[in-house]
Amino acid sequence: MISARLHYEIKSNLKADQSALKAEREKKSSGYYDLVDSQVALLGEIETFAKKTAGFDAIVAVGIGGSSLGAKAADRFLRHLPQRNNRKLIFLENGDPIALSAELDKINLHRSFIFIISKSGSTIETISIFKLLLSKLGKSALDSSCADQFAFITDEGSPLDKLGHNNSVSRFHIPKSVGGRFSALSAVGLAPLKLVGYDIEKMLEGAQATRDDFFKDDPLSISAKSSFIASCDKSVNALFAYSNSFEEFVKWYVQLWGESLGKLDKQKKRVGFTPTGLIGSVDQHSFLQLIMEGPLDKTITFIKVRDFKRNLSIPSISLTGLEKNDYVNNQSFEKLINAQADATLQAVKSAGAPCDELAIDRLDEYHLGGLFIYFELLTSLVGVKLGVNTYDQPGVELGKQILEKTLGGKGQ
Amino acid sequence: MISARLHYEIKSNLKADQSALKAEREKKSSGYYDLVDSQVALLGEIETFAKKTAGFDAIVAVGIGGSSLGAKAADRFLRHLPQRNNRKLIFLENGDPIALSAELDKINLHRSFIFIISKSGSTIETISIFKLLLSKLGKSALDSSCADQFAFITDEGSPLDKLGHNNSVSRFHIPKSVGGRFSALSAVGLAPLKLVGYDIEKMLEGAQATRDDFFKDDPLSISAKSSFIASCDKSVNALFAYSNSFEEFVKWYVQLWGESLGKLDKQKKRVGFTPTGLIGSVDQHSFLQLIMEGPLDKTITFIKVRDFKRNLSIPSISLTGLEKNDYVNNQSFEKLINAQADATLQAVKSAGAPCDELAIDRLDEYHLGGLFIYFELLTSLVGVKLGVNTYDQPGVELGKQILEKTLGGKGQ
Repeated sequence: MISARLHYEIKSNLKADQSALKAEREKKSSGYYDLVDSQVALLGEIETFAKKTAGFDAIVAVGIGGSSLGAKAADRFLRHLPQRNNRKLIFLENGDPIALSAELDKINLHRSFIFIISKSGSTIETISIFKLLLSKLGKSALDSSCADQFAFITDEGSPLDKLGHNNSVSRFHIPKSVGGRFSALSAVGLAPLKLVGYDIEKMLEGAQATRDDFFKDDPLSISAKSSFIASCDKSVNALFAYSNSFEEFVKWYVQLWGESLGKLDKQKKRVGFTPTGLIGSVDQHSFLQLIMEGPLDKTITFIKVRDFKRNLSIPSISLTGLEKNDYVNNQSFEKLINAQADATLQAVKSAGAPCDELAIDRLDEYHLGGLFIYFELLTSLVGVKLGVNTYDQPGVELGKQILEKTLGGKGQ
Repeated sequence: MISARLHYEIKSNLKADQSALKAEREKKSSGYYDLVDSQVALLGEIETFAKKTAGFDAIVAVGIGGSSLGAKAADRFLRHLPQRNNRKLIFLENGDPIALSAELDKINLHRSFIFIISKSGSTIETISIFKLLLSKLGKSALDSSCADQFAFITDEGSPLDKLGHNNSVSRFHIPKSVGGRFSALSAVGLAPLKLVGYDIEKMLEGAQATRDDFFKDDPLSISAKSSFIASCDKSVNALFAYSNSFEEFVKWYVQLWGESLGKLDKQKKRVGFTPTGLIGSVDQHSFLQLIMEGPLDKTITFIKVRDFKRNLSIPSISLTGLEKNDYVNNQSFEKLINAQADATLQAVKSAGAPCDELAIDRLDEYHLGGLFIYFELLTSLVGVKLGVNTYDQPGVELGKQILEKTLGGKGQ
């Protein structure tokens, strides 16, 4: 179960908000709303696919941005679970030559199954790394001798999709209306996650429950929170998650929030918020001072985990001169970290920063699915209230054109 | 060599800025200015210490915030170098029970050398984890039977220092006037880094060169940049580093910048900036849209690496239907990532966001030392111009008091 609590007062019109997102859902402004249903049909296909690829020792996911952040967040969030098999899962995202070499050193490429993930099917980093892998496999082209080692996850009809079709490569399609940053619950996330052992059906179930709750009576107050964020004068939204398991999840959030809402609105006014991801208690020793005494330009969302499922307590040891630290002796680390979240929330609130909290029962697939869709719904509603197109990213094109011009291409 | 270029016009008074920092240096407002000299004396001691601990298989650094971010940033930045030995180095920072278990599973604790790092000597997370380690070693107290396995890095006279003294534990002192977030070049960073093989002398040399350059003629324009940041109306400062090796460095920067400058100024006005760390090209697919079309409330510092020292090129493979990507064929990944940095800088500049760039020759100890001190000097100067105490962090106390009250302590 996920629960939420807002530490501010705000009125919102739930019916209107539900209608707004219902309209987006029906118009297919974004297809993410229905992924949890449409992808259930995919589960069987992914199951068969998983069996076919059972002989590979490691999994390589080549993709960047929305093509990697969801699966990466999920594997970091879930990797402590017993169902995680011992296959290495590496992500090749960036053209950093040191990082590429170091990641490839971790695996035997010849015994690895490789996903090439690109919505457009032509992302420059992804295709360049794809070529590097072909070359490291001793190939000068994609051909049937290596087709069994690859799967492509891309839009139907993209150049990558056609290439795969012509060479009998396994392919999964991303629904056209689902953008990269909303695709964690499509094959983009589900296929690699299945191959390392996770229960992807539970992930869809968790997402479905949270989505349906919103359209029923919004127990997580997504409507009210979106009204607050869209109407208050705070330019920074911090996500303060009290568990290291959120280390990659907060990066997924940063992309979702920054890229969806950082836009020109209908009046061509620049709008949007700076998202920032924090891990508690670590960032109490880093970012907290700025929240407490710096400009009151931030909202803060705290996330807590009710049950870490780990029996680990602070031993009853008293160190001479350090007796004042003994007040936590015999307490569980879980209790300590959650008390730190509560204490920090109280301190931040007393400093005048608006905050809210989410709590999840456990770090598992079901709750992760719920969190994915919680933030997606929140993003959509804030987008409606800002009057932006939540689902495009026109601002990133200019850099790509300059790059292509610089490196000798045409710069379309 | 580090070079810098500002893409905006700004006048500043270098002489006055040099005098301001010279005064801080002489008054010992912070002792970090002279670490590069004072710690040279420590090198012999650390050398001897390294020999004494040569038999251990792994290194454990227990510490949080300023007690871990510097060494963590350094190991991530440098780990590709051949001098990095194959000892595991794990950081235990957070009371997250899943993270603690997972990190401890990576090593044999009985064959590990353990640093306990805390400036105050009583940080609650650090001391609690210290007790956990004692217990896992089968001890109910610190005694001479396990003293050889530990070193304490703390302020002289702290409770931890006394405990170490009374039990013959190796100790390194953090100079009193050096705060946690300015301590990367003290034993806090140097001792663990030496034990995994890095050339810490080179790190000090690089820092010294950059510091002395500032006091000579400021070739990196730290004076001008600080004037721009302190006087312009931008509330967010993004660091956009084009190499995965900066993944932890940007977190070190976030603490330094957020915690030093997020303060009440002399008129009790809340000042400071939100720091954010980005990795290129990955975050072109995440945060760039917000920079391009969102509010113009950000400055952006680009960092490039001139020579990655890795021969890795995009193979000359042409994939049917993807010929438009062939413009990067035969080019090195290094050239691609640096061209991406240049193209993004141009795009961001044309959108009206003020930016500047740093370039370093290589990812090595010398350049890391230089970058550490570059950002420290910049922080100090912006602090002077904002009229804050750059070196304290009064805002984090309230949360600690509430925690202690909640968990049954006295809440001093």
